[in-house]
Parts: sequence; structure tokens; C-alpha cells
Amino acid sequence: MSASLDEVLQAIRTGIPLFLERFQECLRIPSISTAPENQPDMLRMSQWLQAEMRRIGLEHVQAYPTPGQPMVYGDWIHAPGRPTVLVYGHYDVQPADPLDEWVSPPFGAEIRDDYIFARGASDMKGQILAQLAAVEAWLAQGTCPVNLKYLIEGEEEIGSPYLDDFIRDHTDLLECDIVLNCDAMIHSAENPSITYALRGLAYFELEICTAEKDMHSGMFGGAVRNPIHVLTEVLSGMHDASGSITLPGFYDHVPTAEDDERALLAKAPYNDAAFLKTAGAFALYGEEGFTTLERLGVRPSLDVNGIWGGFQGEGAKTVLPARAGAKLSMRLIPGQPLDMVEKQLRAYLEAKVPAGCQWNLTCHSIGPGSVMHWKSPYMQAAADALKKVFGKEPFLRREGASVPVVRLLQERLGVDSVMLGFGQPDDGIHGPNEKQSLPVLYKGMESYACFLYNVGRLKPMSVHD
Amino acid sequence: MSASLDEVLQAIRTGIPLFLERFQECLRIPSISTAPENQPDMLRMSQWLQAEMRRIGLEHVQAYPTPGQPMVYGDWIHAPGRPTVLVYGHYDVQPADPLDEWVSPPFGAEIRDDYIFARGASDMKGQILAQLAAVEAWLAQGTCPVNLKYLIEGEEEIGSPYLDDFIRDHTDLLECDIVLNCDAMIHSAENPSITYALRGLAYFELEICTAEKDMHSGMFGGAVRNPIHVLTEVLSGMHDASGSITLPGFYDHVPTAEDDERALLAKAPYNDAAFLKTAGAFALYGEEGFTTLERLGVRPSLDVNGIWGGFQGEGAKTVLPARAGAKLSMRLIPGQPLDMVEKQLRAYLEAKVPAGCQWNLTCHSIGPGSVMHWKSPYMQAAADALKKVFGKEPFLRREGASVPVVRLLQERLGVDSVMLGFGQPDDGIHGPNEKQSLPVLYKGMESYACFLYNVGRLKPMSVHD
Repeated sequence: MSASLDEVLQAIRTGIPLFLERFQECLRIPSISTAPENQPDMLRMSQWLQAEMRRIGLEHVQAYPTPGQPMVYGDWIHAPGRPTVLVYGHYDVQPADPLDEWVSPPFGAEIRDDYIFARGASDMKGQILAQLAAVEAWLAQGTCPVNLKYLIEGEEEIGSPYLDDFIRDHTDLLECDIVLNCDAMIHSAENPSITYALRGLAYFELEICTAEKDMHSGMFGGAVRNPIHVLTEVLSGMHDASGSITLPGFYDHVPTAEDDERALLAKAPYNDAAFLKTAGAFALYGEEGFTTLERLGVRPSLDVNGIWGGFQGEGAKTVLPARAGAKLSMRLIPGQPLDMVEKQLRAYLEAKVPAGCQWNLTCHSIGPGSVMHWKSPYMQAAADALKKVFGKEPFLRREGASVPVVRLLQERLGVDSVMLGFGQPDDGIHGPNEKQSLPVLYKGMESYACFLYNVGRLKPMSVHD
Repeated sequence: MSASLDEVLQAIRTGIPLFLERFQECLRIPSISTAPENQPDMLRMSQWLQAEMRRIGLEHVQAYPTPGQPMVYGDWIHAPGRPTVLVYGHYDVQPADPLDEWVSPPFGAEIRDDYIFARGASDMKGQILAQLAAVEAWLAQGTCPVNLKYLIEGEEEIGSPYLDDFIRDHTDLLECDIVLNCDAMIHSAENPSITYALRGLAYFELEICTAEKDMHSGMFGGAVRNPIHVLTEVLSGMHDASGSITLPGFYDHVPTAEDDERALLAKAPYNDAAFLKTAGAFALYGEEGFTTLERLGVRPSLDVNGIWGGFQGEGAKTVLPARAGAKLSMRLIPGQPLDMVEKQLRAYLEAKVPAGCQWNLTCHSIGPGSVMHWKSPYMQAAADALKKVFGKEPFLRREGASVPVVRLLQERLGVDSVMLGFGQPDDGIHGPNEKQSLPVLYKGMESYACFLYNVGRLKPMSVHD
């Protein structure tokens, strides 16, 4: 029953070549949850994951069916008196387009220099497998410092439509002291970080239709509505000249960031040049009166994620289209009431879309933001793990992205999540050439092992009692 | 040498079943000039056309090479002392997308009720074949009332990039008294019309780029430029609230329509409901202070023909794209100097696109508008032909669409064009389910035969002497 942390860390290092083989195998399964043609791959992926969990010694491994993709569950509950950690992750990935911008195939898992390139490498198959590798090393020593449960879903990238129901219906199964959410990243290997707040996400699709059929722009141009014109007018009007969002009442319930939190954010090792390089963007731009980290952490945003209409092929086609559409999403600050966002958007559209134009708005998903108790001993256990492995105290940050499950688990199970993952901001997740740094991921395995060790020394139920 | 008009008209009617076979054969060749994958079809189409011209008795039939698609030429010059008519047409067609909106395949040439459905049925294979059918009927009688030359190009739908050079280099070959331009339509069988003015066309492609690669909208949304936002801002700003175009100086050289011309336009058999039905549009909209016919005939227009950027697939993808683009075109009024349009657009973009955004503007084509001598005896010959066949005096109209070759032939050969074709405004050219009314096309064949008869009674060189 006794295993030393050092032996575990050594075992992790020794296991890297085998880990890499499994990681590539996993990345080569194109588990794109949103694509109907990839549904067989989703099944393959959930089966591959269950086999892997069984292989390392987890028990009760099974796929719980849902109306969508199954939830993969497994556990190891042989550490009486120790805390129970619920590990959260997802086995689905984003679509890989634009395909022609990938240097190597998105599901080829090619290794170049210190990176592995694949859709899902950073978001988040790398993180799940690194966490499993840490547990494998512990269990290979005959024990683990904590009790473990796993909840690995298959629809995170499409808004987790059945996750809330599943958690609500399985509160006993999922009961735990703390969630380890691996769907996370660190700032850099030199400056590790821990995220304590996340933005929510509301994702919509809008279509504008002004005619029954496409028209000829010469015969009718200038005398009828062009739906692309209406769409560009509507979308461009959603921000004012100062970069603020104009939906009526949108900021009414956005909490004002306190001075001490703005000061905390200002302590992050941030500089414009490095940020722009990470983003790949040419220039900073955002809501007036806020810093970049504030714009990402404590302010909501609205982005058009896609737009289409008319002729997109090579050359010229003098069409005046009948319809045009866009996908748009908002990042929401913890505290913004979800039920108001769609109402605000609809109110805006009702006021803005001219008479004689049909419009249709669909909500793909809405998920809330969340803030964690960042002074909790579990957070400290994570910070200590990072400090031991990376050699530097991590800084605390609010993240612009969304992990709705954090809030769901707070509400349904009453537990906080520790966000601990080893992607990095320049991994290019959701875009072409997504990558994961392998050296950082190897440090991540060790950090996970240390985190479990640190949590094993805590009293259970220490947070939510 | 003598053939009666009545015998020719009778021969046309008798030949309809065979005509229909040839017409379907021709429509089943997908001669899309803009699509690289259809280049073999372009060759097939030009060969098919040459064979057809030889079959009916035309001489010197050949394909003149150009750097693009060849020009198909043929003639019949055995009517000394009679006028020479240069017949213009094009054998290429628009792309067929959106493919999923076609009821029958775009290159299936299915006949339903009185219509034949195919890309190119109305624009303009139907018109070329109808004109050839009329000539076939004349030549089958052993003669033709006029000398004939044919110039059938293969790149009209992509802006005729080599047409001007070809005409300039072949002024002797193409010398004529009048052009019969078959790339035209009539208002309706009940109210036939003749077009005496056409708008010009300038077609551009604009791309906005704000980053080196696509980004994650959660990690970066709110802190960097979104190229779709910039694009929608730029495009929506091209019109003001009164529907006017805002490009600097755009209206400076737009000629003001005279009162007598506005009165002429007002005489057309127009009503809103019929116009909207033809267009398929839900509502009228355009520049304040002008009627619909004025907006189409004497005012320029600007339309976005296509827009794209980010994620367009099914479901949700939280991408913040690196680039977005649009195709946009302007319909120009005869008299607007072409060299200014691109300058005006560039000046607008330079002022409007924010710093930190790259933009690239490409001009696909610019062609001028044109006005014809509508009191000429050739125009009267056309009007008389329509009156004889359709039983009603045609009305005169300005058309919103563009036929740049009309202006090129005015400039290079010094001859006017008679626009005589038998498409109709609701044929859906350039959109899905393009169709051609067969009864109207049969009347068109007779009208072409009458037109040649009427022109044969005129003295040659009557216009440009």
C-alpha cells in the first residue's frame, strides 16, 4: 500500500515511449461530435477510451447511454478516508476545417520538433491521456493516494446537451470532494498558471431571407433587398464605435470587476507582443476602458464565428442571393443571467431587421460562466504540484473561454473544480494545425501525479462542508 | 434566290421537334466558363456549336483561339448590296449552384409544361439556337435576305477578358452594318419589349485579414479584431440610410435622367406585384426618390454577390477566423467613367478599414454601360418583327443588366446593336431552376426570321454613315 511519489514520477518518465504510441493511436480517431459522418468514429473513440481505462486498472468502466453520445465512466475507490476526485474530460473534438490550412493531416498525429499536431491534441485528448498516465503510474505501484471517478463526455464541443440531465440523474455515482477538470491550459512552461474563472457561452445561428429564390444582380440590383446587406447591417450594428455590445440591456447584469481583482489580473506575466504572437493576430482591439486581460476575463464579448451567403466560388457570379446567414456567439461573465441573452438578441433583431425581410434565430447552446474558490486547499494542492514540477509558483488567471461543466457540477454536486490541464494558449485549438507541446505534457503527467499525492494528504469534504 | 417570308415561318414551325432535340443536346453540355473542372465541356460546347453552324449552311466556321476560350466565327455573305448583320452570342453559362435548389438537374434539360429547365436555357443557348433556326429556315429556301456574320464567345459570364482584344484585332473580319445581339429578353409574350440601354458592370473581390491563423473565440474574443466584424462594417457602410451608395464621388458622373426619358420609362407596363413575383422578392427597396424602373434603368447599384468567413458547417464551432471575404459588384450607368470606380472603392476602403487589418481588393472585370440609337431603322425592323409575330407593338426599356459587348462594338466597329432575345425576366437566370418558355422561344425564331427580312429591305450602312 505504500508507494513513493518519486517512484511514481520515475515510472511516468520511463513510460513515455509507450504513452506516445497510445496518444497517436487516440488522436487518429476523428471523433468530431458535430459531424454526422463521424458518428462511427465517436463510437470507436468511446470504446478505445474504455479499453484504455480498463488497461490501467480502473474499475466499473462503462459507457452510460444518453440521447446523444454516451458518458464514459470508471472509478477506483480503494482509498478509504481519503478524498474522492472526479476527473472530468471530453473525448470529442472540434471539426478540422479549414482543411487546406493544415500542414500535416489533422488526424495524422505527426510529430515535428517538440510538438504533436492533430485536432484534439491540446483540446483535450492530450490532457485526458496525461492524467490517465499519472494514475497508471500510481496504480502500477499498487495504490493511489485518492479515490478516483471519471466522467468523460462526448459532446463538449457541441455544448454538452445531455450533460446536465446526466449529472442530475447520477449525483450518487458522481459524488466527490473535488473535480479535477483537465480541459484546461497553462500560460507557459516558464510561467505556469491556474485558471479560477471561466466565461460562459451562448451560441446562435441567424438567417436572413429576402426572396424566394436567388436573383440576377443586374436585373434586380438596386430595386430589392439584398439579404447580405441586411445581414452585414445587423451584425455590424451589434458593436458601437467604442467596441461595446449594443444589444439592449446587455451590460445591465454584467458584474463590475472589483479593484482588487483587476489588480490580481494585472499581476499576470502579460505583454502585448507575446499575446499577439500567441493569438497570431495583427493588432489588439476591444472594449474601450479595459486592458486585454480584463477584456478576456471580466468582460463579455460577442463574435461572429461564421458568415455565408451568395456566390463563394472562384471567379464572378452576378447573383443577388435570396438568403444569407451567420453563426454568432457571446462569451458571458459569471453572473449574467442566461435567460436574458437570447431575449436581448431577439429584441435587437426585431428592432433592426427591416420590414419585408424574414429572419430566423436558432440557439445552439447556452452555458454559464463560473468562478471557483481559489483559496481552497485543493487549489493549493494544484499550485504546489505545479511549483514542484515546473519550478515556479503559478499565477492565477481568469480565462476567456468557457467550460460550462464547471458551473453544472457546482450547482448539481456542490463541488468546485480545479482546472488543471497542459495545453497552451498558442496551441491553435479550434483552428488549423492544433498542437500540443510534448515536453509540457510530460511535465503535466508529473503534475497530475503530484496533485493526487497532495490531495491524498487532505481531509475529504474539506471544501463543501 | 427568291423565298417568301411566309414559307420561312412555316418551315420554322415544321422544324420545331428537331429543334427541341438539338436544344436539349446543347443544354446538356455544362459549359461553365468559370469552373476549371468544366474546361473539357467548354471545348465540347464550342465544337458542338461549330458543327451546328456548318450543318445549317454557314461558311468559314472556325474557332479563333484566344488566351482564354476560343471565339466561334462563321458567316454567309451572298447577299450583295444588302446589309451585313453581325450576330453576337455566348456559349458559356453561369455556375449552377446552389445545386440542391434545382428541381431537376441543371444540365438535364427537363421539359415541364411549357418550359425547358436548364442552366443556360434562357441565358443564352436558347437565343443562339433560335436565331440559328431562323437562319436555317432561310437558307433551306436557298437564300437569306442579309449577309450574316457570327461572333459567339465563350467567356461572357466571366467578363469577356479577351473580347476587346479580339474585336480590335479583327475589325475587318467583323465589319458589319448592325449587330444583332441575342443576349437579351422581352418583358412578356403579351407585352413584348426592346431594350435600348444597358448598365455596365464592375465586379470585385475583397478580403479582410486580421490574423495569421484562425483563433479560439473564447481565448481571444473581445481582445482582437474579428475580420467578419470588419467586413460587415465595411460592407454595410457602402449604403446610407436612404439607400444611396457612399463611395466618395460615386454619383459625381452619373448622368441625371431627363424628364422625357423618365416619362418614357413610366409608360412601361409595370406594376409592383408583378415585378415582385418575377423577382421572387418579398419587398421593394432602393434609392430614395426613384421608381423601381428608374432604380434599374437610370441609377447605378451596388450589391454584395457573395460573402464568406469562419465556420459554415452544421452545428457550432467557436472559431474566431483570421480572414473573411466578399464578392461585390456595381451596375453602372452609361456615362460613368470606368477608371474611377475602382479608385472610389479603394478610397473608401482606405478610409474605412481600421489600422491593423490587411485588405486586398481584386477587380474581376469592369465593363461599361451603353445606350443605343433607338430611333434607327434597325431598331424599327426589330419592333416591326415583334409586332408581326406577337401581335403587339413592343415598348422600349432600359435594362438593369449588363452586356459589355454592346459598348465594345460601338467603340471598335462603330456600330449599334439591336438587342433581340426571348428570355423573360422570371426565367431565373444565374439562379437555380433557370428556365426558358418554349412557346415564346418559338415565336422568337419567327421574330428573328422577320427581323432578317426587314433588315434586308434597308440600305446598308444606314446607321454609321
